[in-house]
Amino acid sequence: MEFSSKLLEKAVHEMAQLPGIGKRTALRLVLHLLRQPKEQTAFLSEALLGMREQIRFCQNCHNISDTEVCEICSNPGRNHQLICVVEDVRDVMAIENTRQFRGVYHVLGGKISPIDGVGPGQLTIASLVEKVQSGKVQELIFALSSTMEGDTTNFYIYKQIKDCGITISAIARGIAVGDELEYADEVTLGRSILQRIPFENSFKNN
Amino acid sequence: MEFSSKLLEKAVHEMAQLPGIGKRTALRLVLHLLRQPKEQTAFLSEALLGMREQIRFCQNCHNISDTEVCEICSNPGRNHQLICVVEDVRDVMAIENTRQFRGVYHVLGGKISPIDGVGPGQLTIASLVEKVQSGKVQELIFALSSTMEGDTTNFYIYKQIKDCGITISAIARGIAVGDELEYADEVTLGRSILQRIPFENSFKNN
Repeated sequence: MEFSSKLLEKAVHEMAQLPGIGKRTALRLVLHLLRQPKEQTAFLSEALLGMREQIRFCQNCHNISDTEVCEICSNPGRNHQLICVVEDVRDVMAIENTRQFRGVYHVLGGKISPIDGVGPGQLTIASLVEKVQSGKVQELIFALSSTMEGDTTNFYIYKQIKDCGITISAIARGIAVGDELEYADEVTLGRSILQRIPFENSFKNN
Repeated sequence: MEFSSKLLEKAVHEMAQLPGIGKRTALRLVLHLLRQPKEQTAFLSEALLGMREQIRFCQNCHNISDTEVCEICSNPGRNHQLICVVEDVRDVMAIENTRQFRGVYHVLGGKISPIDGVGPGQLTIASLVEKVQSGKVQELIFALSSTMEGDTTNFYIYKQIKDCGITISAIARGIAVGDELEYADEVTLGRSILQRIPFENSFKNN
């Protein structure tokens, strides 16, 4: 691509650094900003810059937060002995949306993935293990995605805390509510048969 | 979506103003920036802000340019009597890539589209008509997309300059080089039969 303006080229180049945004899309987005009032670009730039500079992470659960301790961790109505281990803030938002979980979270910040250069040291695993060893935790729920990396991360943590005498569980995997059996993949269907639950429990909501 | 941070929410909200970027994609992009070094966000913000504040348009052809008169318009080697009328900078880039056109451009900045609230007054039509009336133009080539809006815009301009005694042409429409006839749409195929050209011209490249 040959640009008629260095300013345009630079803006497109920076926009195209974002994941899933190619040069053509970047050019389309940048030209859109040029057609909008100047304020829109100013608001966008300030919001991104402000977020990147000022955002903080909860001291306790490492979730994104505007305060030292996040709203969930500072809520006395939540069960602080029940910790759900998740990958990032999106998982917290998804679980919070269900309104089914009254414990607290521990945000790892990713999964162990040697291919992407992510080792245990880059995640908040040490602080989780410390929390468990302090004796204030009753149950840990693993809620990472069930990929190779997710399973590796779960197992890495499990090895370090299995002798602490707490309950360690994982979220249930199975056929989604409302799904037809015939369209389910065999791994999921196989798991949901092996890990069947007492029928009386299947219509409990809480 | 409920956010754990106002800063995060604001960044996602502004990002989701861009066309084709929904809230989920915006959150993914913003979280990516959070995982990258602070400089990346700073570069992106500065590039966008700098572009929006400082970008200029060529006095002559209205293309995006860093100088008062763009590189193409200030190039004495180009034919300034041959003007190609296009919608925006992307069309200029596409035609320049072919290296087949040695004239200059006139960038309209859009197409007449009452549905989108774009009237002739918002485009650079008046300055084009003025240029033609000044007597320095020999030929005008319409290269807008062949949509209802493109045809309307072409015709609106044509009406104002048809008595100026210049050649007015439109880029050729037809089956793309290398395409199979059986897969072509009938409008394009029909046009390319009606507007057939002498065989000897068909293998000329310039």
